[in-house]
Parts: sequence; structure tokens; C-alpha cells
Amino acid sequence: MVEAYPMKGGDGPNSYAKNSSYQKGVAGAAQEVVNRAIAEKLDIDNITLSNSNTFSIADLGCSVGPNTFSAVGNIIEAVQLKYQSQVRLLDSQIPEFQVFFNDHTPNDFNMLFQSLPPNRQYYAMGVPGSFYGRLFPKASVHFVHSSYAIHWLSRVPKQVLDKNSPAWNKGRIHYLNSTDAVVRAFEAQYAEDMACFLHARAQEIVCGGLMVLIIPGHIQDTHHSQSFRNMTYQLLGSCLMDLARKGVVSEEKVDSFNIPIYYMSPQELEASVERNGCFSIEGMENLRKISKLGSVTESAQLIASHGRAVMEGLFRQQFGDEILDELFDLYRKKLEENPSIFESMDATLFLAVLKRNAN
Amino acid sequence: MVEAYPMKGGDGPNSYAKNSSYQKGVAGAAQEVVNRAIAEKLDIDNITLSNSNTFSIADLGCSVGPNTFSAVGNIIEAVQLKYQSQVRLLDSQIPEFQVFFNDHTPNDFNMLFQSLPPNRQYYAMGVPGSFYGRLFPKASVHFVHSSYAIHWLSRVPKQVLDKNSPAWNKGRIHYLNSTDAVVRAFEAQYAEDMACFLHARAQEIVCGGLMVLIIPGHIQDTHHSQSFRNMTYQLLGSCLMDLARKGVVSEEKVDSFNIPIYYMSPQELEASVERNGCFSIEGMENLRKISKLGSVTESAQLIASHGRAVMEGLFRQQFGDEILDELFDLYRKKLEENPSIFESMDATLFLAVLKRNAN
Repeated sequence: MVEAYPMKGGDGPNSYAKNSSYQKGVAGAAQEVVNRAIAEKLDIDNITLSNSNTFSIADLGCSVGPNTFSAVGNIIEAVQLKYQSQVRLLDSQIPEFQVFFNDHTPNDFNMLFQSLPPNRQYYAMGVPGSFYGRLFPKASVHFVHSSYAIHWLSRVPKQVLDKNSPAWNKGRIHYLNSTDAVVRAFEAQYAEDMACFLHARAQEIVCGGLMVLIIPGHIQDTHHSQSFRNMTYQLLGSCLMDLARKGVVSEEKVDSFNIPIYYMSPQELEASVERNGCFSIEGMENLRKISKLGSVTESAQLIASHGRAVMEGLFRQQFGDEILDELFDLYRKKLEENPSIFESMDATLFLAVLKRNAN
Repeated sequence: MVEAYPMKGGDGPNSYAKNSSYQKGVAGAAQEVVNRAIAEKLDIDNITLSNSNTFSIADLGCSVGPNTFSAVGNIIEAVQLKYQSQVRLLDSQIPEFQVFFNDHTPNDFNMLFQSLPPNRQYYAMGVPGSFYGRLFPKASVHFVHSSYAIHWLSRVPKQVLDKNSPAWNKGRIHYLNSTDAVVRAFEAQYAEDMACFLHARAQEIVCGGLMVLIIPGHIQDTHHSQSFRNMTYQLLGSCLMDLARKGVVSEEKVDSFNIPIYYMSPQELEASVERNGCFSIEGMENLRKISKLGSVTESAQLIASHGRAVMEGLFRQQFGDEILDELFDLYRKKLEENPSIFESMDATLFLAVLKRNAN
């Protein structure tokens, strides 16, 4: 049973659509790398299009963005450019484009469809479901893009929720600020999930097809404890504990709450790709680190708003609607009271280009 | 500019999902004809599947109901049966199935995706947009199904809304109870729309692919005036005029309101198909006529509820949310007061099987 944590839908002040400007900045940085990968690594002479000369692109974990539209628009431009650069090619051989927008079933597809660019150069389709399972027919996709999505695990590892397990994560909401046993449980869940992800994609992507993954990760062998992400999870966890002490939520509910996110290292991804055996890694780049965001007040507001847009659904599932305003306002205040946090905004983000090998 | 009239979304008491049992009954009757068409007319030896051996089905105007799922489930079973009956075929050659659920962008795709059958044997995709334009890449669909959808025009003919035109439809809401000039305006809109529909499908459907259309129509050369549909439109129009007299809505808004539905005859469809030139008509059947529905009270309730589920969006666009309860309650009462209407429930419904010819 795969769990679903959709981004906040609609276009209200707390929506993901209105609070994903940071992801947008990253997309801009990634764009250049994607363009280069398409120019250098996409072998259009040997890639098999469908009988009907259609080039199919999938954005996995697309949310409701505008980000997904600018990412796929950019990919299409780069692929068109590549086809146009083949002097032997007739105009009629430039493919048509089809884009599959995928996210969990509870994602706000109505909003996604309503905000599709009106003059788009592609056929747009929505595909509901978890990317840890099959989403598309065999060998039917030529380019997969996924940004800020596969750091979400398919679920919280079971042991972490089990009172009788050494990996029980009492009073904390993430592995980053927890014990070794909890870290290992998350690592194992990551390995299992990534195996499923790569297995499904290996069946769906045509030989020679590319997959670009933009992943918030971490540098191997660095210690988490002082990292920006660790500190934000600690702070957010402490907000929940405050609410438990005030009786707003039950302590038991906090104990059984974990954020199913794992920050893999490039080396861990490499190991997963090697175990799968169907892909080669054609490139791996660190995108720029997060830079300072302005004044402390602005930074606190931005981090809290963004955290809410991304994780609100998760918190609602566990604690209900009522606590959301109080929780994220408290979080914002605590961020403001701990300005040193913003000095360590060193979160890593990397981009991997994978190619589906011939069988 | 194509207008959109989505069925009532969600699963509340007024939703299309809860008020489409009549369409479901029709689907049952159609099922047999569809099965026979697939068995006899689908030439699986010569139909071109995608490289990846995928058989693609599109349901155009799918709405949210359970009806679309039972229709596509039935199609898939019949196609599988056909493949299995080819003794030369290996199991590995049985195709995978991909289903495109299409409706206007404002359709409730969130509800559609949430109610997808959990154990479905196909990859499900939602495709937002009007079927009077292109929805799919060239030659990418093998079977198109559309039930109770193409009697909706792309829009109300312009002349009908023009005070200075002889086709101005003052005080009425449909051509069935109007003047010859209005009827001609609707006929012309139908012809234009059907030309667009067939032109788009001719590009999208592979050679040898089938299209099944289930169409509420009318028998050529019969007079509309005493028909069940005519009487219901007259009654619903008179309800609006009553509300105008009471000052609930403005008369001007009633004058500029028309229901963009056209009831074609099988002969008109044939003429459109012939003009397009890419399809042959492989079969045309009258499905059973509507039979009596029970007591007058029950019948009135059913017709009013169904009418509301189908047309609520249209009325809301023009008159706002506020009048809906009063309008459809008044409609129900007037139906009850005119029990003779139910004696003439003679509305025609036909099913056409079209095959995409080789170019």
C-alpha cells in the first residue's frame, strides 16, 4: 500500500502553486543541464518513436505547479532543436509530443488541467498513481523527468512506528535527528523504493530513452546533525511536541508521526542503478546550494510557507485540519528565534541523467 | 472557442455519478452490440499496435460516472477474447491496454481518478479537452468509444443569440420547440461540429481502428412537436419563464439561454461520415426505446434529477447557483402535472460502428 502525500492543491495563499518559487529557481538551474543532456546524450537516430512518430515525455510527481509546465516546455524545445539540427530530416519527421503528467491520485488534477498553458505544443495527459509502481505500457516513454519527488518514500518504514522495535522513533518526526536504528530503517525503505522505481521505469522507457532526476540529497560521509534540514525537522518536531504539551494534539499521535522523506547521496543512487542493471548514469551534477533568502523575517516566512505547502497534507492526515495554522505559525516564529539556522543553509541538490540501455 | 458543459461532479445527491442509472441501462444494451462489432469487425491481424504492443482505447466525454469504467472494461474483455481466439498467438503477444478518459477540462477528473477500479487491467490516463479538436497524437488510438456525448454541440449557434437575426430564439431554450430558422441554425452547427469531430478522429485512429458512438438522436422525417424530448424542453423552458415572471431571473437571460444539444438522425450521421471520407459505417443499430419508468411521481423525480445532473452546469453558468433548487423542483412538479408526457417516451437512441479506412 503506497501512501499519497499530495502538495497543497488549488491556488490559495497556502497552495503549492503559490509557494513553489524555490523549486522554480532550481528548475532554472537544472534547465541548462537538461538541455546539454538532450543535446549530447539523446540518440535520436536510434531511439524508437511510436509508429505514429510521437515523442512521449513523463513528469513524475508533477504536482500542480507552474514548474512542471516550464520543465516540460524546456524539454520539448531542446528535443525539437535536436531534431531540427539533423539536416537529413524532413519537417514532417519532427515528432509530435505527448506529455504525461503524473502524481498521486489525490493530487489536484482539476487545477493542473485548468492551468495547462493554452498554446502548448503537446497533447497533455494526466496519469494518477504512485511512481513506485507501473504507470505506463511497456516501452512507451522516451523521456522521464522528475524534480523534487523521489526523495519522498512510498511510506514510513514500519519499524519506526512500532513501539516494540529498537527503531521506534518516539518524539521525533524524521530520521535526520534520530538514532542509528531509525536511520537504518529509512535507508532500507529507500533502497526498496528505489529498486521498485527503477524496475518500473526500465519497463516503461524505450531503449536509448533518458531519465532526468532532480533530487534533494546529501553529501556522503558528512554528518547530518548540524545540517539545515536536520535543524528544520528538529524545530518542526519540537513545535508538535509543544502542541502535545498544550493538549492540542495527543503525544501518541506525535510519536507515531514521521515524515517519509529520505535524502539519498549520489553514491546511493549509483548503487541502486547498478543493482537494477538497465540504466547507465550519463551525468551527475551538483546544482547550486541554497543561498540566503533575505532578512531573517523573510526567510522564516518563506521556509514556513514552503514547508506548509509541501507537507500540509501529511500533517492533516495525522492531526486534522485544525492544527495547521497554529503549527506552521509556531514553526515560523521558532525559525525567526533561531536565525543561526539560516547561516547553515547548505542543503545539497543534485541532478542525475540516466539512459535506458539496450537489452 | 469551444464551450464546456461538464456533468455535475462529486458524488453528492445531485451528482452525475448518482444520477446516471439510465445511461447505465443503455450501456448494458449497447454492450452486446459492441462485443459483436469487436468480434466481427476488429481486424487484429492488420491493425497496427504501437511498437510496445499496446492497445489504446479512448472514451470521449467520459464524465465521472461508473458508466465509463464498465464500458471500457467490456471493450477490453472483448478485445482480449479476440486476441485469445487467435490460436497462432503467444500469450506474450496479448497486448497491454491503455485507456484515455477524455472530457472537458472542467470535468471532475479528481473524482474520476479516485473512483478508478482498483483491480483494473489497464493504464489509466485523463485527457482534458474538447473532442471537437485534436486530443491525441497521430495514429495512436485503436478504439474510440463515446456514449451520450456527441449530441452536445461545441456551442450554441450564434444567430440564435442574436436579437437581429431571424433565428433569434426568444423565450425558448431549444430548437425542438422553435421556428424553422432556429432549427436550421442548429443543423448547421451540428454539421460543422461533426466535420471537426470526424476530421480529428481520422488523424488519431489507426487504420483499421474502430469507433463506437452511442447517440440520442431522432428518426428522420418524424415530426418533433409531440415528441417526449420536445415536451420536456418546452416544460423546462416554461419553468424558466415562470421564474422570469416572478423576477427570480431576468427575461433577457432566459432569451439568451439555449441548450446546445442536437439530435441527429442516422441519415445525418451517414452524410457526415461520407463527406469526411476516412471512415466506413460498419453497423448502425437502434437501441431499445426508453420504456416507462414506474409511477408518475417516480418518473417525474427521475427525469428531473437526471436533467439536473446533466444540465446543472449549463444553467449555473447563465443564472447562478441560487435558482437551481427552485428551477428543478418546479420542473419536477410540472412533469407530475403533465403525466401524458410519459406516455410518449419514444426518444430514439442509436449506435453506430465506424471503421477507419486505410488511406
